Amino acid sequence: MPSLSPAPSPDSTPTTRRTTTPRTTTAAEAATRARQAASAFAAVPLPARASLLRDLSHTLGENAVHLAAVAEEETRLGADRLRGEIRRTQAQLEMFADDVEAGAFLDVMIDPADPDAHPAPRPDVRRMLVPLGPVAVFSASNFPFAFSVLGGDTASALAAGCPVVVKAHEGHPRLSDLTAELAADALPPGALSVVHGREAGRGLVTDPAVRAVGFTGSTSGGRALFDLANSRPDPIPFYGELGSLNPVVVTPAACAARGETIVREYIASVTLGHGQFCTKPGLLFLPAGHGLDDEMRRVIAATHPATMLGSWISTAYRTTLTELAAHPAVRPLHLTDQPEDPRAGAPALLTTTAEDVRAFPELLEECFGPTSLVITYTTPQDLLEALPALPAGLTATIHGQEQEDEELVRRLTGALQAGRLVWNGWPTGVAVTPAMHHGGPWPATTSPLHTSVGSRAVARWMRPVAYQNMPETLLPAPLRRANPWRVPQEVNDSSTRRGAGRPAG
Amino acid sequence: MPSLSPAPSPDSTPTTRRTTTPRTTTAAEAATRARQAASAFAAVPLPARASLLRDLSHTLGENAVHLAAVAEEETRLGADRLRGEIRRTQAQLEMFADDVEAGAFLDVMIDPADPDAHPAPRPDVRRMLVPLGPVAVFSASNFPFAFSVLGGDTASALAAGCPVVVKAHEGHPRLSDLTAELAADALPPGALSVVHGREAGRGLVTDPAVRAVGFTGSTSGGRALFDLANSRPDPIPFYGELGSLNPVVVTPAACAARGETIVREYIASVTLGHGQFCTKPGLLFLPAGHGLDDEMRRVIAATHPATMLGSWISTAYRTTLTELAAHPAVRPLHLTDQPEDPRAGAPALLTTTAEDVRAFPELLEECFGPTSLVITYTTPQDLLEALPALPAGLTATIHGQEQEDEELVRRLTGALQAGRLVWNGWPTGVAVTPAMHHGGPWPATTSPLHTSVGSRAVARWMRPVAYQNMPETLLPAPLRRANPWRVPQEVNDSSTRRGAGRPAG
Repeated sequence: MPSLSPAPSPDSTPTTRRTTTPRTTTAAEAATRARQAASAFAAVPLPARASLLRDLSHTLGENAVHLAAVAEEETRLGADRLRGEIRRTQAQLEMFADDVEAGAFLDVMIDPADPDAHPAPRPDVRRMLVPLGPVAVFSASNFPFAFSVLGGDTASALAAGCPVVVKAHEGHPRLSDLTAELAADALPPGALSVVHGREAGRGLVTDPAVRAVGFTGSTSGGRALFDLANSRPDPIPFYGELGSLNPVVVTPAACAARGETIVREYIASVTLGHGQFCTKPGLLFLPAGHGLDDEMRRVIAATHPATMLGSWISTAYRTTLTELAAHPAVRPLHLTDQPEDPRAGAPALLTTTAEDVRAFPELLEECFGPTSLVITYTTPQDLLEALPALPAGLTATIHGQEQEDEELVRRLTGALQAGRLVWNGWPTGVAVTPAMHHGGPWPATTSPLHTSVGSRAVARWMRPVAYQNMPETLLPAPLRRANPWRVPQEVNDSSTRRGAGRPAG
Repeated sequence: MPSLSPAPSPDSTPTTRRTTTPRTTTAAEAATRARQAASAFAAVPLPARASLLRDLSHTLGENAVHLAAVAEEETRLGADRLRGEIRRTQAQLEMFADDVEAGAFLDVMIDPADPDAHPAPRPDVRRMLVPLGPVAVFSASNFPFAFSVLGGDTASALAAGCPVVVKAHEGHPRLSDLTAELAADALPPGALSVVHGREAGRGLVTDPAVRAVGFTGSTSGGRALFDLANSRPDPIPFYGELGSLNPVVVTPAACAARGETIVREYIASVTLGHGQFCTKPGLLFLPAGHGLDDEMRRVIAATHPATMLGSWISTAYRTTLTELAAHPAVRPLHLTDQPEDPRAGAPALLTTTAEDVRAFPELLEECFGPTSLVITYTTPQDLLEALPALPAGLTATIHGQEQEDEELVRRLTGALQAGRLVWNGWPTGVAVTPAMHHGGPWPATTSPLHTSVGSRAVARWMRPVAYQNMPETLLPAPLRRANPWRVPQEVNDSSTRRGAGRPAG
């Protein structure tokens, strides 16, 4: 959720720990406790680990009313949205519990010894994934549950067998402590702690005990912590989900067939949650002469200003919007005075052309909040030439007509660099489902291989270990011939594939 | 392959391109050609991609005599070893060809739409891995085939569908050009190029077209390029295989049962390929009072000095060995004058105690070449207390007695941080087999999640993309219901697992 210009963020103001509980502590204390808990936690058998995750989901459900009330006080996201987000967070925990029970996430591969392998005999090699160790999670302002203390990063790291230390977002410190307190009853000591404040966050990233970091937030904040993680004497993986423009492309055929519906849904997606989603569609490509300006103005004018997550968000929104609107290449479609309440933001819609987007890269900065940029293109060629100028994103969406647009859509999907391609829909509302990919090349994330949503999110917190010629009794359970944990084992014996071999060196 | 002290490396001397072929070029030219080739190469269907890899293996086999002769002139690794390494390199190419044909590496997951999912209806989500784009590969001095122009990094990147630009090692520039020239006939234009020299290497790491880097070499060189990759405006993944001490632990029971055999095999492993393997056992833990000093002296004295890969290697070896041998905590078991030929190295064996290893971290630096440090421990507790002082490695080896040592071995496997655990064997000789893991936490590699050998090596060069509600005709072939490429598809429908859902935001 980056902004056009540097804006004060809660992390850049002097930090005050507004709430203290016995479980909040310094980064070094929390990291040490996580390190001490790591090997026992890694050894928790899969069914028990799955139970812990289900217990956490149950705890969230049991306390949903109270949790949502505290969250509403701090975030103003609205009770319905917050209750829905708690259910989503429960669904995430339960999905990872299912995955832990199924055991496929251990990625077990077994190559039995093959004395006849070519070019050399091959030993028995068995490989599985093991937990990396303590993980630091930086939670997000805009998802106080789903990307916070018990959110997807924490759930996937616990599923992997890693203790977690969460750096709470200062937009919801009381909720963070309350969530951690409720979770503590379900978890072994040291498996989950919460720390507060910018210095504690930096302390986690540089603490020798911390083996990986998950982050959801701004490009500037994420980049600073990414650089810090890489500058350690022993660099550690840093998985940052940063910003995204989430372009939506409407083909001429789709615009002709259902332009009004598309722009109505578009504005609903832009203003959902008051535009405070990393998947908010920030750009809409429409054919020139679309004739939909009045309809867009009508719909967005009916959306009222609302309180944003914090004054640092509304300030950044207003600053970025003002700069974009003042750009000579931009024309406002709908732009009103901002409300007197400094934490509120009024929706806005701006427009420009594909030609100007190519000419002015400064138009392609994320403006976090209820606004978007409508970009008109003259011809499909004009559209296709503009797309390479876009930074890679978490999502890209195409509205097209399946039959008429087949060739154009192929070229569009080739030109749009994104982690998720949505067809005739909207990017907001990331389904919690095993195949989901929530990621993308820089600047969408710091790590193009990984996702923070979906089953594969667990892979961020694990590393492979191969065991060579280890006897059955000394092997970890998932690698034994007897397979006591009943995990999927990919066995490559010489009858199913060519034997590769071991050379002299 | 790091050394105790900074030593001149070929990359730190003024670079001279000793050989020029039409295919050697500047980094920018090679990267541009790779970028231009990328989308066509990514679109090569799997069977054709597998054929390219098999053609490359065939080319190596056809030209083995000539290639080995050129390699021998440049590296002095010996004709037998080099012919064996060519067969290993062929086996790698063929293993990836098998994997490409099987299609499991695409990691296809399909979650069909589920209107009844809880807590919200879920769209059709289909995910697969796609190639990252052009890859830069830094080849190693000590494997002029298996970790060079057509080595594992290149083979896995081509398997992933990524064009490759290789930064040739200056230890074998003619072989690198010759290999690339032979390979060119089997590959589409732009799919493989070779560049030479330190500046070209740095140019590749910072070139906007390059999307990931594979590296095998020294800790200092790897760290510098890792930092460069991360300091880009758009950081890219950097997979560096750096140094490793490869400790070998012999339990008291194993020492009593077969101490002489163990130390004979140990010295054979230490001096294999004249100690120029990243998996050379650099440390041997023996119980105090082992009584094997004479046997070790006898065996190593029978191993003659030999020409090393280059004078930069022999110089670093001599410098590091001299420093280690002069350490007050170290006693030489076998140490002779070095030969007059400055490119040669004489084998050596040093010894110290577990207590001193804890006290003097400078003893735990890799000395690349035919030497190793024998470490005596007084009790199993003394041994277990020393192990946490070791840096993580590519391998760790245990020689034990299955029955008697069960409890001790469990504690040892918990204490040894390594990518591969070898039982009653030796770490040199990395089997080319799907389950192999050749990696490990820092400082073994820059990326603990990944391997440079084995089937999973391909994953370094791919990123996920999810398609949401995309019609059959517009989906990539591996994601279609009709599954025309017959790839494994993991389908999660609501009958096989709980439906997770889509919340409001």
